[in-house]
Amino acid sequence: MWLRVLAMAAAALAAPREQICGYDKCPAGKQDMLNVHLVPHTHDDVGWLKTVDQYFYGAKSEIQRAGVQYILDSVIQELVKDPEKRFIYVETAFFWRWYLQQDEQTIATVENLVNEGRLEFIGGGWSMNDEACVHYNAVIDQMSLGMRTLFDHFGPCGIPRVAWQIDPFGHTKEQANMFAQMGFDGYFFGRLDYDDKKRRMNASEMEMVWLASQDLGETGEIFTGALYNIYAPPPGHCYDVNCNDQPIMDDKRLKDYNVDEKVDDFIAYSKKQAKSFKTNHIVMTMGEDFHYQDAGMWFKNMDKLIKYVNARQSGGEKVNVFYSTPSCYLKSLHDAKLVWPTVEDDFMPYASDPWAYWSGYFTSRPAQKGYIRKSNNFLQVCKQLTAMMQTERTYETPNRVDYLRYAMGVNQHHDAVTGTEKQHVANDYIQRLSEATDSCQGAVNDALTRAGLPVQTFCNHLNTSVCHVTEQSGKFVAYVYNPLSRSVSPWVRIPVAGDAYTILDPEGQAVASQLSPIPAEVLSLPGRNSSAVAELVFQASDLPPLGFKGYFIQPAPGAATSQVSTERPGLQSLSNGHVTLDLDPETLRLGRVRAGKADIQINQTFMWYEGYGNASGSKWERPQRPTGAYIFNPKGEAQVIEAKSVVTLDGALVKEYRHTFDMDWVSQVTRLYKDEPFAEVEWMVGPIPTEDGVAKEVISRFSSAINSTDTFYTDSNGRQMMKRRRNHRDTWTLNVTEPVAGNYFPVNSRIFIKDADSQLTVLTDRSQGGSSLASGQLELMLHRRTVQDDAFGVGEPLNETEFGVGLVVRGRHWVVVSDPADAPKLHRDLAEQMFMAPQLSFAAADFMTPEMWSSAKVIKQFTGMQPLPANVHLLTLEMYKPNQLLIRLEHQFQADEDPTLSKPVDVNLKDLFTTLNVTSVEEFGLSADRPLKDINRLHWDHVQSNRLPKNFRGAAHEVYRSTGAEHDPLTVTLNPMEIRTFVASYQSPYPLPTPPAQPTE
Amino acid sequence: MWLRVLAMAAAALAAPREQICGYDKCPAGKQDMLNVHLVPHTHDDVGWLKTVDQYFYGAKSEIQRAGVQYILDSVIQELVKDPEKRFIYVETAFFWRWYLQQDEQTIATVENLVNEGRLEFIGGGWSMNDEACVHYNAVIDQMSLGMRTLFDHFGPCGIPRVAWQIDPFGHTKEQANMFAQMGFDGYFFGRLDYDDKKRRMNASEMEMVWLASQDLGETGEIFTGALYNIYAPPPGHCYDVNCNDQPIMDDKRLKDYNVDEKVDDFIAYSKKQAKSFKTNHIVMTMGEDFHYQDAGMWFKNMDKLIKYVNARQSGGEKVNVFYSTPSCYLKSLHDAKLVWPTVEDDFMPYASDPWAYWSGYFTSRPAQKGYIRKSNNFLQVCKQLTAMMQTERTYETPNRVDYLRYAMGVNQHHDAVTGTEKQHVANDYIQRLSEATDSCQGAVNDALTRAGLPVQTFCNHLNTSVCHVTEQSGKFVAYVYNPLSRSVSPWVRIPVAGDAYTILDPEGQAVASQLSPIPAEVLSLPGRNSSAVAELVFQASDLPPLGFKGYFIQPAPGAATSQVSTERPGLQSLSNGHVTLDLDPETLRLGRVRAGKADIQINQTFMWYEGYGNASGSKWERPQRPTGAYIFNPKGEAQVIEAKSVVTLDGALVKEYRHTFDMDWVSQVTRLYKDEPFAEVEWMVGPIPTEDGVAKEVISRFSSAINSTDTFYTDSNGRQMMKRRRNHRDTWTLNVTEPVAGNYFPVNSRIFIKDADSQLTVLTDRSQGGSSLASGQLELMLHRRTVQDDAFGVGEPLNETEFGVGLVVRGRHWVVVSDPADAPKLHRDLAEQMFMAPQLSFAAADFMTPEMWSSAKVIKQFTGMQPLPANVHLLTLEMYKPNQLLIRLEHQFQADEDPTLSKPVDVNLKDLFTTLNVTSVEEFGLSADRPLKDINRLHWDHVQSNRLPKNFRGAAHEVYRSTGAEHDPLTVTLNPMEIRTFVASYQSPYPLPTPPAQPTE
Repeated sequence: MWLRVLAMAAAALAAPREQICGYDKCPAGKQDMLNVHLVPHTHDDVGWLKTVDQYFYGAKSEIQRAGVQYILDSVIQELVKDPEKRFIYVETAFFWRWYLQQDEQTIATVENLVNEGRLEFIGGGWSMNDEACVHYNAVIDQMSLGMRTLFDHFGPCGIPRVAWQIDPFGHTKEQANMFAQMGFDGYFFGRLDYDDKKRRMNASEMEMVWLASQDLGETGEIFTGALYNIYAPPPGHCYDVNCNDQPIMDDKRLKDYNVDEKVDDFIAYSKKQAKSFKTNHIVMTMGEDFHYQDAGMWFKNMDKLIKYVNARQSGGEKVNVFYSTPSCYLKSLHDAKLVWPTVEDDFMPYASDPWAYWSGYFTSRPAQKGYIRKSNNFLQVCKQLTAMMQTERTYETPNRVDYLRYAMGVNQHHDAVTGTEKQHVANDYIQRLSEATDSCQGAVNDALTRAGLPVQTFCNHLNTSVCHVTEQSGKFVAYVYNPLSRSVSPWVRIPVAGDAYTILDPEGQAVASQLSPIPAEVLSLPGRNSSAVAELVFQASDLPPLGFKGYFIQPAPGAATSQVSTERPGLQSLSNGHVTLDLDPETLRLGRVRAGKADIQINQTFMWYEGYGNASGSKWERPQRPTGAYIFNPKGEAQVIEAKSVVTLDGALVKEYRHTFDMDWVSQVTRLYKDEPFAEVEWMVGPIPTEDGVAKEVISRFSSAINSTDTFYTDSNGRQMMKRRRNHRDTWTLNVTEPVAGNYFPVNSRIFIKDADSQLTVLTDRSQGGSSLASGQLELMLHRRTVQDDAFGVGEPLNETEFGVGLVVRGRHWVVVSDPADAPKLHRDLAEQMFMAPQLSFAAADFMTPEMWSSAKVIKQFTGMQPLPANVHLLTLEMYKPNQLLIRLEHQFQADEDPTLSKPVDVNLKDLFTTLNVTSVEEFGLSADRPLKDINRLHWDHVQSNRLPKNFRGAAHEVYRSTGAEHDPLTVTLNPMEIRTFVASYQSPYPLPTPPAQPTE
Repeated sequence: MWLRVLAMAAAALAAPREQICGYDKCPAGKQDMLNVHLVPHTHDDVGWLKTVDQYFYGAKSEIQRAGVQYILDSVIQELVKDPEKRFIYVETAFFWRWYLQQDEQTIATVENLVNEGRLEFIGGGWSMNDEACVHYNAVIDQMSLGMRTLFDHFGPCGIPRVAWQIDPFGHTKEQANMFAQMGFDGYFFGRLDYDDKKRRMNASEMEMVWLASQDLGETGEIFTGALYNIYAPPPGHCYDVNCNDQPIMDDKRLKDYNVDEKVDDFIAYSKKQAKSFKTNHIVMTMGEDFHYQDAGMWFKNMDKLIKYVNARQSGGEKVNVFYSTPSCYLKSLHDAKLVWPTVEDDFMPYASDPWAYWSGYFTSRPAQKGYIRKSNNFLQVCKQLTAMMQTERTYETPNRVDYLRYAMGVNQHHDAVTGTEKQHVANDYIQRLSEATDSCQGAVNDALTRAGLPVQTFCNHLNTSVCHVTEQSGKFVAYVYNPLSRSVSPWVRIPVAGDAYTILDPEGQAVASQLSPIPAEVLSLPGRNSSAVAELVFQASDLPPLGFKGYFIQPAPGAATSQVSTERPGLQSLSNGHVTLDLDPETLRLGRVRAGKADIQINQTFMWYEGYGNASGSKWERPQRPTGAYIFNPKGEAQVIEAKSVVTLDGALVKEYRHTFDMDWVSQVTRLYKDEPFAEVEWMVGPIPTEDGVAKEVISRFSSAINSTDTFYTDSNGRQMMKRRRNHRDTWTLNVTEPVAGNYFPVNSRIFIKDADSQLTVLTDRSQGGSSLASGQLELMLHRRTVQDDAFGVGEPLNETEFGVGLVVRGRHWVVVSDPADAPKLHRDLAEQMFMAPQLSFAAADFMTPEMWSSAKVIKQFTGMQPLPANVHLLTLEMYKPNQLLIRLEHQFQADEDPTLSKPVDVNLKDLFTTLNVTSVEEFGLSADRPLKDINRLHWDHVQSNRLPKNFRGAAHEVYRSTGAEHDPLTVTLNPMEIRTFVASYQSPYPLPTPPAQPTE
């Protein structure tokens, strides 16, 4: 079936038919009238109240009456019946699984509809990803997965021209920037701050041009529109089987004839809506969550609406209604040739009313958020290794890498990574990631085998200091793979059961190591099944780019045996040579940090907010709305969790303060690795007790002497830094109703404060909510457990449990104190090391001896590529087609960050990879669906930016356009913040698989 | 539109295409397998929780997700896609309004589907009528309306071959008899007593031949099947948008694959079901209430079910599933050539469990039941007069008579006349009847105008002794129309405000009259707005058949002034010459009745049952299930409502006892009209107080010296009499769990008990529940008000209110005490006078004088027909087509009832009507949709009856077959209980309307 679909699609593309999709096929509207674009649409969450598969099939109707298979079945049927009708489809994860189940006739029908532009893909990602909690790497992957699937099968008419983020709970600048570079002509969303929306409606500034990159200029601009009614139809005009609005009853023979009332109402609403917009075109989103299961119901009533509204024209009414799509609406706006207002900040956080700031979800389900980030890391490893070793080059999809692509695509959904799904759905998301990780680990194993390694074991529970192979093996080899395009020397921590180990590096040299006892809080974690009592810590020095090293580890004690961390009572100061941490003897907290020239008082502690909500589920007034999966609604100031004890562990490699607190469900290890420029804070929170019926949201707060006033900085999806000001928004006067929640912003990778002398940067291992509520202060929310649903739809309190108790979460912050001038190069580098961390794998080696280890026949290391310059990141290396590579190179500095590293940089792809000889490249759009040369976005005039030079087209753009032709075809110039995407032909020492035969049927 | 549809249908019939509907096109099944007929169906209540129009459009989804327009839209679409698929549709009220809204293409599509037998009409009445509370006259009308609509537009393929009563709450013998005579080949129903069903399942006697007429023999036989699961699909296999069962998930790439489990379950269920049936064919009803709004959902999953179940055949499984219809299933049963068991009683009352006897609905909403019966009466009047006067002969429907046909069709629905609908729906039903009555009154006015009368006023509130025209006019004429085919002399009661009147009959002769004061209980009725203080009573003597007389009434006192009823304190006995009523001075109740030879102690009183149920809506156990709209569940014995006072009113024409009771919401007038053989008991009950939180069900109980033992008799839909035995069922041993409710039976027109010497018969003016709970006893339930929903779906307690208080209901019983041998001729005659009562209308006549009244120019009377023999009833006289009449003649006696009147009788149609000269007739089936000669029902062998002669084909059948050919073509022989239906050509003095031109488009 699968092959047949592929072959048919290929045949369809091979024999080009007249494509009649495109802007020029859009309904024109009437010049002297208010043109109302009805956009029939369905919003199909890729998991929320039900799992993605339950939604697809329409199972578990008792939870929600929602079945995507029926939506597509029934919409196609309606489209076929009437050429006036149009429909958009958004979530490729659903579309594609449906498409694969169709018979040839339906496939041909769908191809025709797409080709005619009547079934139009919008958005087109595998899911409609969240924006607050996602990392740009994962967004690019999931958008590419969806858009490539569409383009590969439908060709140009399958390209989504409009980005469609109608439901995500706030919008980031980097997301807009990425959409621009994926070739979208426009971007519509549904949710923005209630007050911002009010102002924009009054000022007719609902539509604007988002100048989404300070660095890229026009390349990062995108026309952006906020929808009038989120994504719902006008009140009273919801005609789905899931709606309760009255149908249009137009038979005068029957009772309840309501045409006049319906038409009056619709016209009045249209005119009211039009007041908030600049042109004589408005768009009405005719659909809602999982609508159109019975598409005939919607269309039948819209047919009547169109008929009876337009019938008023003969009486002089100037309203004209017709079926349309977002892209056709966009086209109408473009035709208006207006000069549009601009926006340069972002739409975070989202508040739906003065007491509903959706900043809870920045942290909801922190374990899931951590696992998703970790899975992104592994997916990159998996793609790199299978590409380098050419082990997953089948013509058939899905292959073992695809499963993880799919799982990651689904997990970027705005009810997945956000933590706003029901618990059983969260379980399903995690299970998908887990199973897909297994699958990709199989592929990695094949790749490593081809590289000469034995079969590897992956330890998936290192987050609880558990690894059965290392605990139970006598001797073993640990392999450390570096997915970065430069050399790194990470610290490795391996759970072990013994009390002394020796480690040999690939050269057979002994490696210094330290045995660090596993904290009691970890040892007693519920459900933990492990004999490990310590972590064996060592530095994997100089790991080659895209390469690995093996370390032979034996329990045999000897000269080079591991040192054991030493308890040093009373020691109030730890230093690793670069960083010195002093305790405050009064509070036992961290009190002072010295690093290079920086020397500041820093006080760090855990605190907790009491959230509104009542475990009895009692009623509430809006200001006391329960804190929950979506919103953060604390009752007041955070309360301190006092430190109870501190143990100081000393050693040559790693030194630690181990804190316990008067609430015994919180603990922390503050750690200095030898010579590293940061302190690692490993926090563990949970089970948060809620037996008292009180919701608790736990933060780590740093209070410092830094004079940051009201300003702090958070990253935008791990890339651009956003300047934030407390109690302030750039584009409207903030009414401070929620002094805490309203100042929370998403932190995907880092948050910092600074003054002229010092900068305190905290890097995170997952997305969290963060803020600075006072000058010198910086806080991150770590974990939350609530007692009541916050009434935004999920229908459950956020109450994660495992083994019968509240979920325990363990994570890391890297705390960097530095001169502000040095900070960017530190945090850009460290953030990459965080999200592209080395991958550990293991092989038992009971028969191995040091002598054998020294043999040349034992593969102990591998180098995948020449190192790239320090400011270049190899964002993507993966198979594109069975005989093409996909390569993305990224300049990871902003233009003003570093005098050296912010400069443009050249990379030559020739001879870059050791197993892949790139012979030619073609540049593609960011989503890798089509060549860059085929992307011609609509141009939008806008008012002059306050921040950017007039007509700034971006450093990247300028350089590329001016010098591209003269370049060596394999030399790529990267400007600040630029990502360039290439599809490459290559040669490799590994043979191509045989293409499948054409199906005979 | 309407004309176009008609013309198109006519054209379709005119150009006959190959009809491929029919039994021989049914799927054959496999001989060695269990053949499972999947019957996709929807059960569309013509009003229940929502009004009929709300159901049609799918309005008020918050009450129920149900929209018939979408069902038909979506089913047609699915049928078109796949020739294997079949669907049945039942309720013509819905189908027809949908059909009228379709465009030409859809109409053509539907015609094709019907012609191919893939859209099959089943049942086919305007609604799926109730059986317990309906009168046969209304059933015949509503079935004819539906079936004629289908036949006229679709021809032979539109004929429903199977009667389909899957939801009504019990089944009557007369209904089965009527179905047989409408030409149905079989009859399926869903609900029968739980214990009866259990026995039948064990004995494989779910299917049988119902010998439904003692008098008609084979003509009244019908193959009857009880469905296995009412009308629901097998548990777990409900695939509608309104269901929560899991879909069939057959994509192994996704989670939750469940094909094996689904198929195992379906096969197991099929085999279990098959054990209760005799052949290797079983039927599965794949649908439920208002299913198939999104037909694709159902069909998609059934396609998979069929595919995966039948795939098991290759592994040896002997189960074969396919799409089918009830008629195809019936065909399979017929092909089995078995000798089937028989049934000769009926399926009343229905008990769904030992503590849920659905005998409450026999009485629920007594005002509505009364109004429906009254509307039936008026519809017959309206049809007769418009036919006789040829005033409603348009080619376009609906005409003014049709509206009342439709309203009556809808009101026969099993949630309408039953009283089991929500209150707002009950209001809608009544409003429909009221509006349609207005419409038909308009038509009657035209007819009477053509007969020479002035414009008439109809007094629609005579039930509360209100008539504005007679109260407020000085002088007026009262016209009394007799819809019976024989002369009658009814007693007329006219509300008046004055204290003395003279009445002149058409000959100008003074008519004796009596002024009867309106009881105080009536005068103080809430909402009553009238100046009438008395009713003017007189006898309209010798009203001609289908004729009227006018009575000129003046308030002028004079010689012939009306007598006023005289209060006679202490009078303990009243007599009208035929009947003598003695009071029991102890109890003040009626104590003794003498009539002819009969002389019996009879004690009559009101009583009330306390029903289970708690106004707080608290939970209950099954035995304490609340009494409600469906079920009657009393806590124990009825409690007496003691008589408080009695007033005796004497007069020459009418004598009355007027009782009040210690519960002041009950009152009664017991009345003897001069020379009549019955006593009229006019009861008034309400507002029943439920402020005490206690449900109350009020009865009138007669206790007599008649030695009736355990036997009593109730009518079946107003025709055949059913012998009932207390605590007994004919076909199984009754487990007496509910000694009261389980002995209640529907009484549509009469109930009696008797011994060798005396018979006590009570005739009712509406359907009621009745019983005999002890020898000599007889009771009828009059009114009920409950406090809790009985949890069978309606979701409301039965709690009728008006003007802020409980509804007051007033009705009449005619009590006849006689020699048993005389009883049939009395109750047959009186029952007809009750349900075909004279119609009063009025004209103010202020300028009229006695002299003018004597003028020949003033039309004062009219005779429509020659009188028919005393045992013949003109059941129907109406327009059939613009140039044809529909005539039904009925022999209203059973064979053994009367030595003379039970004999066959001839009627000659020639010169029968005064304005309609019948020239030729063709005999049709009872539902008047097609000629009798075209009806060839399937023959079913059955075991010999205990009661009927072997191979008895019915007296009617024998006579008709043997002598029909020799008859004068216009002479009709009627045998006992026979109804014969004729379509007649005729001539009349009134010209034909011009047929409409063929539409040009």
